[in-house]
Amino acid sequence: MSSNNDIDALIEMMAKLPGLGPRSARRAVLHMIRKRALLLAPLSEVMATVAATARECLNCGNVGTSDICDICESETRANGQLCVVEDVADLWALERSGIFKGRYHVLGGTLSALESVGPDELRIPKLLARIDNEAISEVILALNATVDGMTTAHYIADQLDGRVTVTSLAQGVPVGGELDYLDDGTISAALTARKPM
Amino acid sequence: MSSNNDIDALIEMMAKLPGLGPRSARRAVLHMIRKRALLLAPLSEVMATVAATARECLNCGNVGTSDICDICESETRANGQLCVVEDVADLWALERSGIFKGRYHVLGGTLSALESVGPDELRIPKLLARIDNEAISEVILALNATVDGMTTAHYIADQLDGRVTVTSLAQGVPVGGELDYLDDGTISAALTARKPM
Repeated sequence: MSSNNDIDALIEMMAKLPGLGPRSARRAVLHMIRKRALLLAPLSEVMATVAATARECLNCGNVGTSDICDICESETRANGQLCVVEDVADLWALERSGIFKGRYHVLGGTLSALESVGPDELRIPKLLARIDNEAISEVILALNATVDGMTTAHYIADQLDGRVTVTSLAQGVPVGGELDYLDDGTISAALTARKPM
Repeated sequence: MSSNNDIDALIEMMAKLPGLGPRSARRAVLHMIRKRALLLAPLSEVMATVAATARECLNCGNVGTSDICDICESETRANGQLCVVEDVADLWALERSGIFKGRYHVLGGTLSALESVGPDELRIPKLLARIDNEAISEVILALNATVDGMTTAHYIADQLDGRVTVTSLAQGVPVGGELDYLDDGTISAALTARKPM
């Protein structure tokens, strides 16, 4: 393509990233080569650092640079609340909101009969162990509102039945959302869960 | 965001690439961390190599790893044809088609009164010098069919008037294109340039 092996190899690797295809990988690589001193060299260094140090927290599954992540290490986050999410990206999204002050548990996916993912493929045994170890009083199920997400939430709620309070995220109209653009399921959920003003 | 400085720095740099925003950069970084041995470490290495070796060809402006690029070095490409493009990405697109066997000249942009880009900001003086140095017989103007691209093409054609044959890419219906989906300008250009079957 570029008549140069290293540049072609870089394009090919960039094209494997989610959200990038061959065309956008070529654009990104050309952009990086133009800004090679300011962008390509520092990017390469920070990638090498992350490649060498990144690992999954042995306790919760969050991504960090130590065996136990900062959130699990922090005593101030041990408030008895444990928020269960499917993926590290969901954990980051909740952290950005800044509203949750407890700890997390990353399942690493959802139960799925089609893809034969059972409880042991996820971090569900570890979740059950943490309930006692960390004196958890409330488990907040923050799974995606998909069929697999809901199935997994119900499975976990069954497993925890009676041991701790189990809650889930409220369903309803998104902040800033317009009714006209919402699907029927969301409107019906918001109407069912209506509350006094 | 991820409560880790290196990972945050990586996300921030990735988000600066064209085609990626904060959200897709986070997705890409999580993907890379999951595949750190297979993707992140090799990607970091090839980036370091490219950062250290990539440079622009002193003759044509193509991107490569030596002062004179492979195409300019190759004697078999000295067939008297010189294809003028705006950008290295256009050169790569023409190379992928495999139909052009001459050499290239990358302008590095287009003339633009609004952004005060004149002939000396582009590689136009170098282009004029190459006509004699490399015994060019035909200059093919493969600029984008935008207003700035067309202005630049006319300027170059004026400068070269009488010295060499100057041609430009044909305008018309794209291969596989459906008339119903084409803009009026393209249809009118294709009709004007119609040819006997």
